[in-house]
Amino acid sequence: TVPAVADIFSADDLAVARELREQALAGDGGYEIVADLTTRIGPRLAGSEADPRAVAWAERLLTEMGFDRVWLEPATFPTWHRNLERAQITEPVAFDMVTLALGFSPATPAGGLEGEVVMFDDLAALEAAEPAEVKGRIVFIRNRMRAARDGSGYGPAVQARSIGARVAASKGGLALMIRSIGTSSNRFAHTGTQRFDADTRALPAVAISNPDADRLERLIAMGEPVRAEIEVDAEFIEAYTSHNVIAEITGSKYPEQIVALGAHLDSWDVGTGALDDGAGIAIVTEAGRLILDLEQRPDRSIQIIYFAAEEIGLWGGRAWAEANADNFHNIQVGAESDFGAGPIYEIAARVSDQAWPVIKAIQAELAPLGIELGDRRASGGPDFIPAAPYGMAAIDLRQDGLHYFDYHHTENDTLDKINPEELAQNAAAYAVLAWLSAQSPIDFGSGETLLDEEAARAAE
Amino acid sequence: TVPAVADIFSADDLAVARELREQALAGDGGYEIVADLTTRIGPRLAGSEADPRAVAWAERLLTEMGFDRVWLEPATFPTWHRNLERAQITEPVAFDMVTLALGFSPATPAGGLEGEVVMFDDLAALEAAEPAEVKGRIVFIRNRMRAARDGSGYGPAVQARSIGARVAASKGGLALMIRSIGTSSNRFAHTGTQRFDADTRALPAVAISNPDADRLERLIAMGEPVRAEIEVDAEFIEAYTSHNVIAEITGSKYPEQIVALGAHLDSWDVGTGALDDGAGIAIVTEAGRLILDLEQRPDRSIQIIYFAAEEIGLWGGRAWAEANADNFHNIQVGAESDFGAGPIYEIAARVSDQAWPVIKAIQAELAPLGIELGDRRASGGPDFIPAAPYGMAAIDLRQDGLHYFDYHHTENDTLDKINPEELAQNAAAYAVLAWLSAQSPIDFGSGETLLDEEAARAAE
Ligand SMILES: [Zn+2]
Ligand SMILES: [Zn+2]
Ligand SMILES: [Zn+2]
Ligand SMILES: [Zn+2]
Repeated sequence: TVPAVADIFSADDLAVARELREQALAGDGGYEIVADLTTRIGPRLAGSEADPRAVAWAERLLTEMGFDRVWLEPATFPTWHRNLERAQITEPVAFDMVTLALGFSPATPAGGLEGEVVMFDDLAALEAAEPAEVKGRIVFIRNRMRAARDGSGYGPAVQARSIGARVAASKGGLALMIRSIGTSSNRFAHTGTQRFDADTRALPAVAISNPDADRLERLIAMGEPVRAEIEVDAEFIEAYTSHNVIAEITGSKYPEQIVALGAHLDSWDVGTGALDDGAGIAIVTEAGRLILDLEQRPDRSIQIIYFAAEEIGLWGGRAWAEANADNFHNIQVGAESDFGAGPIYEIAARVSDQAWPVIKAIQAELAPLGIELGDRRASGGPDFIPAAPYGMAAIDLRQDGLHYFDYHHTENDTLDKINPEELAQNAAAYAVLAWLSAQSPIDFGSGETLLDEEAARAAE
Repeated sequence: TVPAVADIFSADDLAVARELREQALAGDGGYEIVADLTTRIGPRLAGSEADPRAVAWAERLLTEMGFDRVWLEPATFPTWHRNLERAQITEPVAFDMVTLALGFSPATPAGGLEGEVVMFDDLAALEAAEPAEVKGRIVFIRNRMRAARDGSGYGPAVQARSIGARVAASKGGLALMIRSIGTSSNRFAHTGTQRFDADTRALPAVAISNPDADRLERLIAMGEPVRAEIEVDAEFIEAYTSHNVIAEITGSKYPEQIVALGAHLDSWDVGTGALDDGAGIAIVTEAGRLILDLEQRPDRSIQIIYFAAEEIGLWGGRAWAEANADNFHNIQVGAESDFGAGPIYEIAARVSDQAWPVIKAIQAELAPLGIELGDRRASGGPDFIPAAPYGMAAIDLRQDGLHYFDYHHTENDTLDKINPEELAQNAAAYAVLAWLSAQSPIDFGSGETLLDEEAARAAE
């Protein structure tokens, strides 16, 4: 039988949770950590020269902070880097556009390629097009991302980026050019990966800034044929090995049981990866530091995981899930911070029926931070998606992302976009979450329990 | 004797003014004009390949609109264009900064120059520095522009750009690097001209984006020596001849008397010159169009002047003032729109004592647009500054510029930053102003009258 929500945690554990919350709010949320990361390391694309510098920075930081254990875990992946990209309209008037190649775009011939531009409203329109409309042309997809607190406009719009090039290739297109998948009208292009497989590299693919897309649309509306020139130089790297960096606060009663807080250390190669995901690094590290500074160790172990190579395909998360394939009964719960630095407004969780009251009890301690109880659908964040098939229990602390996609994956993702007070609210929530999850008298159900319950629910 | 304010204009003239105001508010403020200019022509630096295209576009537009006369007036000036610029920190960590060369910057040696960075709080601190601090170093001025509705933060901050390079040169500096003179934390560099003379070209000069300046400051604060590499390739052009484009609504009673509305046609070579000064072009053209569409011609002539080469030194304004040197008794009043597309909140005027009640009477018709009465200091706008020594009467319709310097002189000055409703408020104000100025029974005092009054006031 499940205890009443109010009785789940001991008075002592609740007192510590409240102390952690207040301490976090009085601090900077780890702002100095993300300031240091973005100043000393800057952009850190997986497999770039900055990748090992970032890993070394992280290992040193976590070691100096005094975690009980700090170690590296390898992750091997294909990667890519850009040398140059340009996109220009050549007819009926000539102009340069602000552009970025999309991840895994192949190079064009040196000097670029040139062709007529054919515009589609969205990926579905391209999918419905006759090959004759596309063949030999530069495909321009103009779909606009909708801004929303929960970021729900991203999924529909990003399809054009994820698979636009392969759809265009299948109809004989020359290259893909998309309106940036972002919510700002600032003149930055938005990069990001394409869904990776052998086909992905078939067609050069770029995003143009939203003001440039506006101008292109107006030009097309004038009715004369519009021609463009695109040049990309980029390199595909078959295999690179980077590392997840993991720091542990070892549990005093159940050291083998893990509460996993995550963020990803890599970033895109433009901007300095401040919001994505330096902020997450700061938040979970600050949460860990506060718990580390307690006079007591938690019952369970708490791990802070800096994932490698999230941006180009969740490779650090995949490696971690595979490494823990036989251990998910011990991974109590995972939660990653990877949605910028906006305040958290909701806690959602994928946990067993028995553990749902624990989430309610945790939410009661998050309520003073303005955090409400959400639903029972949670991924835990992108790097825990590869753990989903193993039935890992996952918690989402949902952040206000209304402006996240104004900056995400652009040159403009820099430290000044982070508000230390909002960062502190995040750190407070993660500290409370981690501490109470480590003290919970009830298991979260990771592994067979959760998979069995979900299978039973699906069969009903 | 001066009539009471309420009696200055006839009931018929006031009825027309109100009709113009309502018609303007029902329109788009000339949005389609600036949309066309920024789409078809784009950036149009004085003396660039786009300069004659812009002049031809303007002449055709104004002719097709049916102005009574449209003509070109030559303006010859020195100019400059950029080929490339880069600024990188090389020690203690390497990173690329978003940068733009400042107008008239000379080229560095091919491959760039490299040196230690020395930081100054502002131009005054550089002026106070010992040459030994500066010699052989790259001078970085970190002053931050303050945002204000009236743009009053620009003047103090822009000194670093205007003469920073010559001050640095006088102390043996290697190059000048300034924090961008702008109010946004978006990662754009802000270009603009340096005060032009032979010395201006002594030292390569660039602006770096504000987030990059932040990072550089943090790096310097860490205490290790910071080194940078700067490369500029740019060309100085001794003399180029462009043209002011002028359109006239010829007055029915006093055709030789001119009410002059201005805006500048040129722009910087980044962005598309939408706010600076495509918006002004739209506003004054729309005001002219509305008056042109009346069944009657105004008593005085109204001229719409698109000035050439404002950005690099007010050259179109200078040429216009010189061409009118013997005619300022006929230039009733000048007013230029060159502060973006924000709403107008105030009318200020430099007019004779006798004409000040006319300004009050005009303000009464602008009040429904939210426009208050300002002071008696007005320049008429940058391109009318060269007319000031001739005693030209001038009116400022002051716009809310709180966000103007978020975009000004950056790649981000694009059409999407313009709100057609705010543009329409501007066009309404200019239409009312031009019409009533053309119908005023009282002269504005341009020339000897104004100069004599001002001299007498100064002698008191
Ligand atoms: Zn991320
Ligand atoms: Zn990302
Ligand atoms: Zn201007
Ligand atoms: Zn300007």
